[in-house]
Amino acid sequence: MQLLRSTRLISRLGIGPLFPQNDTTVAALPAWALSSQPWRGVKTVPDSPVTTGRERLVILGSGWAAGRLLRDINSSLYDYTVISPRNHMVFTPLLASTCVGTLECRAVALSLTDIQPHLKDTWNKFFLADALAIDHDRKVVTCNNGSSEDNFEVAYDKLAIATGSQGSTFGIPGVEQRTHFLRDVANSSAIRKHLIENWNKANLPTVSQADRQRLLHVVIVGGGPTGVEFAGELSNFISSDLMRMDSTRARDIRVTIVEGMQLLGSFDARLREYAATKLHKQGVSLVKSMVKEVREGSLVLQNGDILPYGICVWSTGVGPTEFTTSLHFAKTARGRIAVDDHLRILVHSTRPEEHGPTTPGQVQHHHEESHEESSNAGFEPLKDIYALGDCCANVEGPLPSLAQVAEQQGKYLAKQLNREAQTQRATEQRPEWPAFQYHHLGSMALVGGSSAIVELGDANKPHLSMTGFKSWVAWRSAYLTRLGNMRNRFYVMFNWTLTMLLGRDMSSW
Amino acid sequence: MQLLRSTRLISRLGIGPLFPQNDTTVAALPAWALSSQPWRGVKTVPDSPVTTGRERLVILGSGWAAGRLLRDINSSLYDYTVISPRNHMVFTPLLASTCVGTLECRAVALSLTDIQPHLKDTWNKFFLADALAIDHDRKVVTCNNGSSEDNFEVAYDKLAIATGSQGSTFGIPGVEQRTHFLRDVANSSAIRKHLIENWNKANLPTVSQADRQRLLHVVIVGGGPTGVEFAGELSNFISSDLMRMDSTRARDIRVTIVEGMQLLGSFDARLREYAATKLHKQGVSLVKSMVKEVREGSLVLQNGDILPYGICVWSTGVGPTEFTTSLHFAKTARGRIAVDDHLRILVHSTRPEEHGPTTPGQVQHHHEESHEESSNAGFEPLKDIYALGDCCANVEGPLPSLAQVAEQQGKYLAKQLNREAQTQRATEQRPEWPAFQYHHLGSMALVGGSSAIVELGDANKPHLSMTGFKSWVAWRSAYLTRLGNMRNRFYVMFNWTLTMLLGRDMSSW
Repeated sequence: MQLLRSTRLISRLGIGPLFPQNDTTVAALPAWALSSQPWRGVKTVPDSPVTTGRERLVILGSGWAAGRLLRDINSSLYDYTVISPRNHMVFTPLLASTCVGTLECRAVALSLTDIQPHLKDTWNKFFLADALAIDHDRKVVTCNNGSSEDNFEVAYDKLAIATGSQGSTFGIPGVEQRTHFLRDVANSSAIRKHLIENWNKANLPTVSQADRQRLLHVVIVGGGPTGVEFAGELSNFISSDLMRMDSTRARDIRVTIVEGMQLLGSFDARLREYAATKLHKQGVSLVKSMVKEVREGSLVLQNGDILPYGICVWSTGVGPTEFTTSLHFAKTARGRIAVDDHLRILVHSTRPEEHGPTTPGQVQHHHEESHEESSNAGFEPLKDIYALGDCCANVEGPLPSLAQVAEQQGKYLAKQLNREAQTQRATEQRPEWPAFQYHHLGSMALVGGSSAIVELGDANKPHLSMTGFKSWVAWRSAYLTRLGNMRNRFYVMFNWTLTMLLGRDMSSW
Repeated sequence: MQLLRSTRLISRLGIGPLFPQNDTTVAALPAWALSSQPWRGVKTVPDSPVTTGRERLVILGSGWAAGRLLRDINSSLYDYTVISPRNHMVFTPLLASTCVGTLECRAVALSLTDIQPHLKDTWNKFFLADALAIDHDRKVVTCNNGSSEDNFEVAYDKLAIATGSQGSTFGIPGVEQRTHFLRDVANSSAIRKHLIENWNKANLPTVSQADRQRLLHVVIVGGGPTGVEFAGELSNFISSDLMRMDSTRARDIRVTIVEGMQLLGSFDARLREYAATKLHKQGVSLVKSMVKEVREGSLVLQNGDILPYGICVWSTGVGPTEFTTSLHFAKTARGRIAVDDHLRILVHSTRPEEHGPTTPGQVQHHHEESHEESSNAGFEPLKDIYALGDCCANVEGPLPSLAQVAEQQGKYLAKQLNREAQTQRATEQRPEWPAFQYHHLGSMALVGGSSAIVELGDANKPHLSMTGFKSWVAWRSAYLTRLGNMRNRFYVMFNWTLTMLLGRDMSSW
């Protein structure tokens, strides 16, 4: 009906192709109704999805876990649909570099269709939308694209939940409104813009010296790898670029890390000490405290002290997303979806009725006070529904929220799903899955322009190493070769070269 | 007072550098008060501006005119201050390419400090601010940086106004709120984001076929070079990238140019015809009409017809900015600042009192009905205040709003100002200025992936040429060599290569 009406309108308008020999009149042929195909054709695929006979795999998310699963899934065995509010994956380990322009955002963002070219096939889909609910009885996911459009449902045979975590505010007032998270490229763009904005504001004759110092004070809440790497990048930006730009103003910049616990707590003591010395030499200060409130232009600390800031970056930890919290599955004490060692989602093995009614839409709250469950006893796995990455954990051995954990889980799940489909085709039987095993490749953090710390192998016998920029590049490049494509590798190399040769660009819009 | 308070607070907090050997306590040394300089030094320049004895040149703007003036001005003859709401210049002739990702925004934005490295010297300044008013009696410009900070004044000995023009809405309702201009990188970023957003929305199962077609209908109002180039880039993006992505959806995309007059009106008839044929072949439609109103999702045309759109780009012409309109100088009939052939600003040669009182802040409205003045009779030039670029025109021979006009004026003004300062140093006399003369280098427009039209030399004996992508690249590169730096040239080459090899990136945030 609506189509008819708009076709009629267009037809009345007389939109048509240009007729250059007589460009004062317009052809009456309606553009909508043009039977010829105006865009020069590439490969033509059928208009409507054909019945392929393959199982439908739905993947929620587009981070490390979803990205690796998507890359490795065999397109001749599954038809897949990816549902995510982002059409790209972010190379999170390189994200801190984009905040100051060492790398551009485009260097660290990877289109999903570049990860998996078969995602362009008609029977595979990408929906730019949030998952809202899962009905595993009917095997559908309810989604919404965030605008006023109605919800829609996507049916699945197998479902992989990889919706990740979110920056945790710990319920502290003002965090959401006044600080920057550092989780995706939109965040790092905003931080870069804010930095240059404050740098320019600090130059205005109307700004008092106190305001200038406040504007140029960057406070990073959280002393984990992200916070430390950002502090390192920032001090390098200040000493190599801003000092050349205007040394008077650059001398007023201060970088402070606020951390209530240990700096780089997950690293070995010797490495922590090395990192701290490096940061100190680079002029980064530390306040050992917790934040009670984020006000406009100042932080209120635990003891009531006030810390003025121009820019506040919040990188203290992650918690479950609203979606994860709303799901009616078993959870760990920290609110992550409980999975077994096959990444299968767990539910209480007793009937849900015995735990009281759980109607869809009702939010199952996560109880902070409960202890981490130490075994899967009393739970049973659901069939054909899996969780991987930050959104989930195995209660018998919860793994940290790391890119390499998520990526290995994606690899594992793709392999098992591929094997299962192949075996079923051949023998009509489901094969046994081996347990997922995590191999810790080590940790590394860049602490300033030319120094990095690295911890290789597993935690029991760590190979410690205090190392330089070159190893860091090698380490980071390994991430790129793991999942990046030509575009990203070119971009990263190009950006690094440009930064080394010409410094960082300060244009901002 | 405020400084004291905040210093005391910080001191109470005990912010200090990290002491890695004992990281559970925090040093009591206040960070603000650190006497040592934490950022490793580069060149140290004096803290406060010294008296250089040079004349102070203030440049308002950061476009082609201001950019060329800034590049060519002799830093040993003038101390200069640039005041602009942007800290970079935009290569406007390449801007249409950034809307679809053929080039990235950073390739076409050029930091002012890259144009003129001496802008970093202590005695030269850049203020990220809008100019609000000029008091030529006191020789000060009043500025504001757009946030809540107070206005501030910048004193000058010589003033160059190059604040440009703005996209004209012609008073048509809805243009400001619902269409995209295509004048700077923020615009082109927004267009690119909107395109990919609509492309993804059109894929949702909840969207009707009529809505899908509306979402995928890009309407360009204005058939000048910008509109035509954008249409060309867009159809190339559709046929080379989106058709590969999802040919079913790509076939629903329509591109329409709405133009009330001639397509590419400034070009020769034969070239116009060639361009129109090319656009037609690429599937671009033309509606010959004017727009009466821009509603949410549809345009109302002059005859009352309704044209639905998903994205509307407004590129129909330019008009004076609010700042230009507010200035108490003589204006042309189109509201541009009237200048003589030395680019000096004109005022009525009779005393202002005879024209009634003009108090500062009172806006002198531009009368659309008045005729273009045809001579400078009755006007006299002011001393030491110049206008150049789009914001001004010589009533005896107004020039079009083109990058090459602005750029030549910038070059001319820099040369004359340099010569004047040199002569004054040597002889204490002001030299005579030759008249500014514009050399038309020709016009060129890219009409789709591999075709361009070019018009060389002056309008009286045009060298016509219908040419290809290669000449376009050469032409555009000439712009880059004219004012671009290494970074931009590298970026443009890199982006073009990447686009040719790997197609355009579709990641969006």
